[in-house]
Amino acid sequence: MSRKVKVFIATSLDGYIAKPNEDLSFLKIVEKEGEDYGYAEFTATIDTILLGRKTYDWVQREIGSSHYDNGEREVYVITRTKRPNVGRTTFYSASLPDLIAELKSKSGKDIYCDGGAEVITELLKNDLIDEFIISMIPILVGDGTRLFKDGRPEQTLELISTKQFDKGLVQLYYRRVKE
Amino acid sequence: MSRKVKVFIATSLDGYIAKPNEDLSFLKIVEKEGEDYGYAEFTATIDTILLGRKTYDWVQREIGSSHYDNGEREVYVITRTKRPNVGRTTFYSASLPDLIAELKSKSGKDIYCDGGAEVITELLKNDLIDEFIISMIPILVGDGTRLFKDGRPEQTLELISTKQFDKGLVQLYYRRVKE
Repeated sequence: MSRKVKVFIATSLDGYIAKPNEDLSFLKIVEKEGEDYGYAEFTATIDTILLGRKTYDWVQREIGSSHYDNGEREVYVITRTKRPNVGRTTFYSASLPDLIAELKSKSGKDIYCDGGAEVITELLKNDLIDEFIISMIPILVGDGTRLFKDGRPEQTLELISTKQFDKGLVQLYYRRVKE
Repeated sequence: MSRKVKVFIATSLDGYIAKPNEDLSFLKIVEKEGEDYGYAEFTATIDTILLGRKTYDWVQREIGSSHYDNGEREVYVITRTKRPNVGRTTFYSASLPDLIAELKSKSGKDIYCDGGAEVITELLKNDLIDEFIISMIPILVGDGTRLFKDGRPEQTLELISTKQFDKGLVQLYYRRVKE
């Protein structure tokens, strides 16, 4: 079985992954001591991370450089402007479908796309996301960056599971239905 | 306890209530003999329906005139252009907050807003929706009419329940948190 491309992401009920100005403060309403909403379990299934340059820069600045590149995983940052590679982090500016094909041709664990919305849209336009784990935060934020942009092809999904957590977070797990 | 304004609506996972050209065909993927996804139970809690003029005209054309006005319920169609009332259906073109205040000042069952997105947005801008029952259809439709438009105020919600159904529909039930 080939490696899967998976999205694991939180959105508000109205579909935003961030409020304007990259404001993620609404995620705080589901914070709970000792509850990681399956993140550790999920990251144990992956060995490669794919993300957009803006998301990468934001995380470098706000969280730190080892969040993605912990020395054990390959990290691919999708960017229009090439930068020199750092550690196991590769800045990639060629075709995203080619990169996925190349990664899938190798053996390994699954591939985690951590956003942003632009990279997810590009993957969806090429039907390249195999699984979605979406954590729905119990809030309408009203405005911001949408997880799903307009103008993508239709894609039928299969619901694998639903989990409801104490703080009102609902985690929806879907698999792509192959035509 | 005063009457509540409730939304009971289906959306694709990517947040659309219709594909372009009012195409609702994606709802077919969850159709199942004898399964109404709680609709009858829900409508037993309401005696008043509020909806936009475009949704009303669409339903009149596609489903028939008795879908909303069954002789037992009050129906309010929000429209910019006044029409003569028909049966228990009132065409309403004044302030939506005033209408809600008037309805809430009377005793009765709850009030069901059946869309469309414009009326829901107008209600949300005025913090007038008390409960949301959202049925998430397992599909990314890619484009169309969004349930939640940009440019609304933030609103915190409380998750009441989650139900998962055979065909992959997930029903999320939220209540408005009053500040």
